[in-house]
Amino acid sequence: MNVVLLAGGVGGAKMAEGLAANVGRELSIIVNTGDDLELHGLAVWPDHDTVAYTLAGLDDQVRGWGLRDESWTVMDRLETLGGLEWFRLGDQDLATHLWRTDRLRAGGRPTEVALELGAAMGIEPRILLMSDQPVRTEVLTEDGWLEFQEYFVHRHQEPTVRQVRFRGVEAAETTAEVLAAIAHADVIVIAPSNPIVSIDPILAVRGIRPALEEARARGVPMVAVSGIVGGKALKGPADRMLASLGEESSALGVARHLVPLISRFVLDRVDVGLEEEISTLGVETLVADTIMTDDAARARLAEEVLAFATSTAGTSP
Amino acid sequence: MNVVLLAGGVGGAKMAEGLAANVGRELSIIVNTGDDLELHGLAVWPDHDTVAYTLAGLDDQVRGWGLRDESWTVMDRLETLGGLEWFRLGDQDLATHLWRTDRLRAGGRPTEVALELGAAMGIEPRILLMSDQPVRTEVLTEDGWLEFQEYFVHRHQEPTVRQVRFRGVEAAETTAEVLAAIAHADVIVIAPSNPIVSIDPILAVRGIRPALEEARARGVPMVAVSGIVGGKALKGPADRMLASLGEESSALGVARHLVPLISRFVLDRVDVGLEEEISTLGVETLVADTIMTDDAARARLAEEVLAFATSTAGTSP
Repeated sequence: MNVVLLAGGVGGAKMAEGLAANVGRELSIIVNTGDDLELHGLAVWPDHDTVAYTLAGLDDQVRGWGLRDESWTVMDRLETLGGLEWFRLGDQDLATHLWRTDRLRAGGRPTEVALELGAAMGIEPRILLMSDQPVRTEVLTEDGWLEFQEYFVHRHQEPTVRQVRFRGVEAAETTAEVLAAIAHADVIVIAPSNPIVSIDPILAVRGIRPALEEARARGVPMVAVSGIVGGKALKGPADRMLASLGEESSALGVARHLVPLISRFVLDRVDVGLEEEISTLGVETLVADTIMTDDAARARLAEEVLAFATSTAGTSP
Repeated sequence: MNVVLLAGGVGGAKMAEGLAANVGRELSIIVNTGDDLELHGLAVWPDHDTVAYTLAGLDDQVRGWGLRDESWTVMDRLETLGGLEWFRLGDQDLATHLWRTDRLRAGGRPTEVALELGAAMGIEPRILLMSDQPVRTEVLTEDGWLEFQEYFVHRHQEPTVRQVRFRGVEAAETTAEVLAAIAHADVIVIAPSNPIVSIDPILAVRGIRPALEEARARGVPMVAVSGIVGGKALKGPADRMLASLGEESSALGVARHLVPLISRFVLDRVDVGLEEEISTLGVETLVADTIMTDDAARARLAEEVLAFATSTAGTSP
């Protein structure tokens, strides 16, 4: 069963790991690149790397991001020199960025570089970039337009987001690898990532939405998992963003945001009661335990999502 | 007493430290940039950093290069990923390259970036780049032209050097800072660095040799210290290079290489007997203990060199 996952960072990575436990190399992940940045001359791809580290079993499940047993020698010394210190890169993480920057400077196409890195890390699923061209998410706040990491890391997501844009997206198009993955998909899953700054950038890249619509028209189930549980984002500022952008900070809000693209929707048990209103959007619903606390929970949720997606008829009990 | 030192890496750094112990902030070092390279997207300046680390008291005197108490977490992980591993950058060393690459990408002029770094490291003397434009030393071997670090680090200086060139030197010119330092110099010292690949690149940059000749014409003493002792280079391939390029691998060979620029020459006690022939080149000589085994030896040699340079008449006993 070929599965395609649209994913941002942490929520996407957990969903990817759960799906990989079920379908292994039949999983392709289309990852958001709108959070990427260049730092100290290095190509840093936060969402890609969160997914990659998680799939390689190297993620720090306690801290929730980065590599396990990470050390910070380089950043500590950089601070001594008075260098940029708000975006800290761990020592092992830095090796990824050096490796990637080498390959890119040698002329490697970003998607191929990502696939090479996946192979070097022993990852079975394919992690595909939404585009080989740079797209940069920016948010409008009271302090003007901020680059995403400036907002997300440096300002701790504190400024209120009034508008979101994906700089460069007009000139970006998706890749042959992404189009082939969607064309061969039996199921398409949208991860419980931030719908505004993790999923929307993917959908905004030329070629992706039409390919998904074509898949849906072919009858390929398209299922989203809510990243908003009990009105709150499991991680990050999705709840506040939905509210400040005039949407609803709830599983219902997420479903509305993704309709009419999706055909099925998974919400958490905490949100029992919302499924009726979500059904009126024209999507079938499943209520499940969506909080992926450990590897077993990730695998189990993914199994339920795949069963739900491929069931012939299915509003859940 | 304003002292200007022309310097390459290790030999230059030891001489710089000895001179700094005598004249402190009145020392300006003009450093070779022909060994510089871009690695993983980072600006790596080996000779500059060897001098800087030594002056900051951070140099590893046992290993002879790099930083004391260095760790290798990033490179070890990079090797696991199958990345370039012949040019290894230590964790703390990497912080320097990240810091510098940031400043350069923000538009900093290389010389200003170097001076900022010196200030951040608490270094009193000024380390000046020979040029703000890139100059890259290359050597012709049986395998064709090799970039300097490819020859020096990757091939362990094993190929025989038939010719040396400084790529980019036609387009490079020296800086206002270098010209001002030479114009105000009371003494100019050429370090016991490799005359062919450390000193020659400096002399080849437009503006430097005429400025030195003008200084000499004004009566500023110009003293070189031999880096060849008993026919052997203290470190590196200078002896083999001199021989394969048809020069003599001896203190006499070094003196011949630097005449007529220099007015005085320091050779090691091991080479007693050569001073007569060196004198016939028109330079005054001093025989001294030139092997700078520790801080005290560096300071003592520098003191002798300065006394010799400023003595009114002086072929040594």
